[in-house]
Amino acid sequence: MDQRLRIAVVGAGYWGPNLARNFSTSPDWELVAICDLDQDRAQKLADRVGRIDVETDLDVLLARDDIDAIAVATPARTHHPVVMAALRAGKHVVVEKPLADTRERALEMVEEAASRGLTLMADHTYCYTPAVLKIRELIAEDYLGDILFIDSVRINLGLIQPDVDVLWDLAPHDLSIIDFVLPGGLTPPTVSAHGADPLGAGKACIGYLQFPLEGGAMAHVHVNWLSPTKIRSMIIGGTKRTLVWDDLNPQQRLSIYDRGVDLAQQSVDEADRRASTISYRLGDTWSPALPEHEALAAMAEEFAASIRGSRPARTDGRAGLRVLSVLEAASTSLAVHGNSTNVESSEAREEVTR
Amino acid sequence: MDQRLRIAVVGAGYWGPNLARNFSTSPDWELVAICDLDQDRAQKLADRVGRIDVETDLDVLLARDDIDAIAVATPARTHHPVVMAALRAGKHVVVEKPLADTRERALEMVEEAASRGLTLMADHTYCYTPAVLKIRELIAEDYLGDILFIDSVRINLGLIQPDVDVLWDLAPHDLSIIDFVLPGGLTPPTVSAHGADPLGAGKACIGYLQFPLEGGAMAHVHVNWLSPTKIRSMIIGGTKRTLVWDDLNPQQRLSIYDRGVDLAQQSVDEADRRASTISYRLGDTWSPALPEHEALAAMAEEFAASIRGSRPARTDGRAGLRVLSVLEAASTSLAVHGNSTNVESSEAREEVTR
Amino acid sequence: MDQRLRIAVVGAGYWGPNLARNFSTSPDWELVAICDLDQDRAQKLADRVGRIDVETDLDVLLARDDIDAIAVATPARTHHPVVMAALRAGKHVVVEKPLADTRERALEMVEEAASRGLTLMADHTYCYTPAVLKIRELIAEDYLGDILFIDSVRINLGLIQPDVDVLWDLAPHDLSIIDFVLPGGLTPPTVSAHGADPLGAGKACIGYLQFPLEGGAMAHVHVNWLSPTKIRSMIIGGTKRTLVWDDLNPQQRLSIYDRGVDLAQQSVDEADRRASTISYRLGDTWSPALPEHEALAAMAEEFAASIRGSRPARTDGRAGLRVLSVLEAASTSLAVHGNSTNVESSEAREEVTR
Amino acid sequence: MDQRLRIAVVGAGYWGPNLARNFSTSPDWELVAICDLDQDRAQKLADRVGRIDVETDLDVLLARDDIDAIAVATPARTHHPVVMAALRAGKHVVVEKPLADTRERALEMVEEAASRGLTLMADHTYCYTPAVLKIRELIAEDYLGDILFIDSVRINLGLIQPDVDVLWDLAPHDLSIIDFVLPGGLTPPTVSAHGADPLGAGKACIGYLQFPLEGGAMAHVHVNWLSPTKIRSMIIGGTKRTLVWDDLNPQQRLSIYDRGVDLAQQSVDEADRRASTISYRLGDTWSPALPEHEALAAMAEEFAASIRGSRPARTDGRAGLRVLSVLEAASTSLAVHGNSTNVESSEAREEVTR
Repeated sequence: MDQRLRIAVVGAGYWGPNLARNFSTSPDWELVAICDLDQDRAQKLADRVGRIDVETDLDVLLARDDIDAIAVATPARTHHPVVMAALRAGKHVVVEKPLADTRERALEMVEEAASRGLTLMADHTYCYTPAVLKIRELIAEDYLGDILFIDSVRINLGLIQPDVDVLWDLAPHDLSIIDFVLPGGLTPPTVSAHGADPLGAGKACIGYLQFPLEGGAMAHVHVNWLSPTKIRSMIIGGTKRTLVWDDLNPQQRLSIYDRGVDLAQQSVDEADRRASTISYRLGDTWSPALPEHEALAAMAEEFAASIRGSRPARTDGRAGLRVLSVLEAASTSLAVHGNSTNVESSEAREEVTR
Repeated sequence: MDQRLRIAVVGAGYWGPNLARNFSTSPDWELVAICDLDQDRAQKLADRVGRIDVETDLDVLLARDDIDAIAVATPARTHHPVVMAALRAGKHVVVEKPLADTRERALEMVEEAASRGLTLMADHTYCYTPAVLKIRELIAEDYLGDILFIDSVRINLGLIQPDVDVLWDLAPHDLSIIDFVLPGGLTPPTVSAHGADPLGAGKACIGYLQFPLEGGAMAHVHVNWLSPTKIRSMIIGGTKRTLVWDDLNPQQRLSIYDRGVDLAQQSVDEADRRASTISYRLGDTWSPALPEHEALAAMAEEFAASIRGSRPARTDGRAGLRVLSVLEAASTSLAVHGNSTNVESSEAREEVTR
Repeated sequence: MDQRLRIAVVGAGYWGPNLARNFSTSPDWELVAICDLDQDRAQKLADRVGRIDVETDLDVLLARDDIDAIAVATPARTHHPVVMAALRAGKHVVVEKPLADTRERALEMVEEAASRGLTLMADHTYCYTPAVLKIRELIAEDYLGDILFIDSVRINLGLIQPDVDVLWDLAPHDLSIIDFVLPGGLTPPTVSAHGADPLGAGKACIGYLQFPLEGGAMAHVHVNWLSPTKIRSMIIGGTKRTLVWDDLNPQQRLSIYDRGVDLAQQSVDEADRRASTISYRLGDTWSPALPEHEALAAMAEEFAASIRGSRPARTDGRAGLRVLSVLEAASTSLAVHGNSTNVESSEAREEVTR
Repeated sequence: MDQRLRIAVVGAGYWGPNLARNFSTSPDWELVAICDLDQDRAQKLADRVGRIDVETDLDVLLARDDIDAIAVATPARTHHPVVMAALRAGKHVVVEKPLADTRERALEMVEEAASRGLTLMADHTYCYTPAVLKIRELIAEDYLGDILFIDSVRINLGLIQPDVDVLWDLAPHDLSIIDFVLPGGLTPPTVSAHGADPLGAGKACIGYLQFPLEGGAMAHVHVNWLSPTKIRSMIIGGTKRTLVWDDLNPQQRLSIYDRGVDLAQQSVDEADRRASTISYRLGDTWSPALPEHEALAAMAEEFAASIRGSRPARTDGRAGLRVLSVLEAASTSLAVHGNSTNVESSEAREEVTR
């Protein structure tokens, strides 16, 4: 008897082929169909991954009872109707980021999945890279100590998107990673965002985002479509150690520095308080070896494990919702000259629906 | 007849020896005395630079008529009294950064110098490095085109200062450089600053500063005392080219990229407007050779040229004042959760006093 | 009428799929069959590139008259019989590197192709990368001046090959590139090679190769399977400029330095001869933008152009032969403690056969 | 009672001031005089380090009985007469590299010092840098395992020296470091050297040196005056770990990789011997924090400790002699097209003189 779960990929454009390839080779999954309005595009993809079924009508696809789950890789504005239809048809769903095009619609999707006991997962692919999985593990083990700051830079000469600004295009990566690695997830009370559109493109091409973290710490994200050089780095400072992730250095993606400032809190004579209590650590640097695996393969495995274990996926719908909450607050802040803006808490309504 | 100007260095602590060494070897200057309350410290420095005079009393020093100018390297809070006394004694003055500990006091100093026709110069040393001189020249020649954005990062495991936060400690470098290279100088109407003190040091150890530039452009400065790795870089994006300055790469400090986004402004059918008007340049990179010289030697030369030519120094007192105006507004913004804060214009009163 | 040339790929193992994919998408070629002793492996590849024919018998394949050329990606020791059969069947041939497992066999292949007027091409893939094509162009335009030295490093933690040492595994890349970019090709009279097998693997795992170039210049190649870090770089020093190729830096693969030493040759008083005639250039650095294309696509295009133009390919069989001549001399040198060893000239017999 | 040893520096040119500065601030030493034929140059240096004595006559200096030791920083060709005179006057001596201009003269110096029971030390400054001291320590602790290979690169756009070729100018650094870090020192039986003088400078401007190490390992040194980029790196491969020293990366000078190839030597069926016994380690990377100190200060300390402990210095005259033995063999090899050349053993005569 075949224990594999059966899945169809909806959307055969840019990202769908990556999903199809990984589900077709996953030991947990049987890929049974490709669905796209464009039959030719669907057929080509279906041939490439093993001569599987092609569907051009979503309703027909969802009516099939030999399908347990669907993977959605359609344009963001269609995520809500596609996912809602799939959930109502009793299918588990994984959705390409962003979960939806607004926080409100994402919340509906989360609630629908919760009320039906189905898995709704956000395909936050970066979270399943070896580097980010290792960062999550190190923080969970308290290897860095309390987090002091997170500084993320993701800049490049990027394609100016027709429908979203640079914050919506790039920052979801940084935000979903921060959500994934922090034990408490991404739950800032407020956000400030600054941006500029110096070319007159009609939207911000340069963006900066900052928000407080627990215990006086802060996070900062810099995204930029106009930089001629590519940088993808994240520094996570902790009381014990500081981690630097340089995603463009395959020979040393992660470096953990035993370097930092210690501030002893003993009560001493006020006059020379600082001199006596600040000390500097100048220790070794360590770069852990990372296993080599494709992120999407690990994502596919987690999706299966979530369904089988009836537990939320590590990047579940609520994670996608938290990212959207921050993005919407960032857009609001951007419109008021970067002033601090409250992030809508998604927890209240969720409590009710549990 | 000796045409050299005569100078004394006041303050023999951290920075004074650098000033003394450069003035003692400058063809424009004769270094005649070292002044410090600590006679022993002054004597040691005086010996090292050629057995020159030592003074421990500032008034005695300023009363000497064989001195044309003084270089002040005393603690920031003493800049105002020392400089005011020197100006009143008819001496030209160059002052270590920051010009004063408050904008108000700096303004007094600027006005005093202006009313007496004396040169008051800020020792913004970085501005006289070969790299920054070249950046100024390239922008002046319109080689970069209109400025779109400036992003400056200056992070390091730094000494937590007893009296100032990380913005006041490090950002003066970035601000004085931006002031120096932009044809219009540093005159933002508003500033936003974010910071964090996650260790409980009593002051921000991490700081982010942003302000608008002319034409919809923006500048952003990141300073940090808690980073285990050292970064000193500045990206200056322009409509024609983008410059990257990596000060820690002596083999290629400046790189100018002919890479960017062009946005043609012709009126076209709305539907495909963007597709037809956005284009990407993916041209060559060029790294100019830089002459090797010590920045302070060039500063000393400029100080002499300013005095002899009766013209403002390239980093005159007003430049120092503009930096202080931004720093004070940043401190205000920091206190109100990063909200946008007006920068005091120093121009009004200056106009009156001219 | 379809003007495309028709090709079959022989060998569906490691490299064959890359050849198949590129010939199947080339505008110059129609990929008509995959040939492999392992039918299943051949079928899978044939499916992936468009459901084309599969053959398991080379003779049957070569007997087909709807095939103009074959691409050989079988093990090196089989290159000679496969290629000879194909040439005798009147097919043009491109062969994965190395051309053959001995210089003698390669020479036979070259002569066979010459006598039949067929194209025999070596798939020196690296030569068709944008970086190497640009290097060839710059040298041809005399942009670097006379070549003074070439230093190539190709080290990595590499798989210890069962049948060849590190020189035969890695140096063919460096040698074929040097052959390609030098106007006179790779024709050193002698070679010295040093190596070590410190692990007792039964073959050299570390290798150094050096040989003279024209005009007193020299080339040096360092290959190593035991290095924990990966380096792929080549420095080409010239009298006018020096080029550095860092293949692992996608943001700046090529850098051309206008830095160097000039030695004027005027006759002067002997005593201070050197002081007066040596000068140093410390000019700018320039990094040309490189087009993005897959090397194998350019190789496929060149193969077609060679056949259609009845002219040798840019990496023809003789190029492969020159590489083998140097490798064989290197093996001889290795066996005599690195002493200088003559390189067999392949030109004599070639002359006769023309 | 002053326990400090008393020293004079002979030679106030390029290197003398560095020696003078370090001996003048060392707790082990009292710097009592500067000696140079050029009185003015000597006086300036004497003033700078504390108004000490100046001598212009070496014999007068050596006749003083308030001097325990001298530090020699005169041109290489004068090392022999100066050092011999000093030893005969009963002074301990430290000499700037190279120890002498020929191996024969160096041997005389070593024997003279040995027969008089005086310390003769080579100022192999690099050996006292924190990085090299750490490398020596790691190898001594068997942290790297058996050494498999050493690859050293020291290239730069360098000054073409009037009297020596690039091997004699730069390779002494690499050779003295290898001598220092290997427990058995630098004692290769043979050396091969290749070089080129493509500019017609009258001496090799590019040089490669290789020699066997114990147990089938090998060392290779690349020195070059014509490279536009500066590289100073050394890879030391071991059976347990591999160390990479990048001297131009102050943020991570040393990296120790737990990556490599393991070759189990168990006896197995011959046919699949290799497949079953080769395995690859892909472990973590570690970068030890290095203390910050000036190399010459540690050298001065070692010189004092050697004298006080009546034990050879860690870089004693014999170390300098071993370096010269390799350099002379390299020059011979260079003259015979890089053929393997015997290195004169300095041990035989030394044995006699002990």
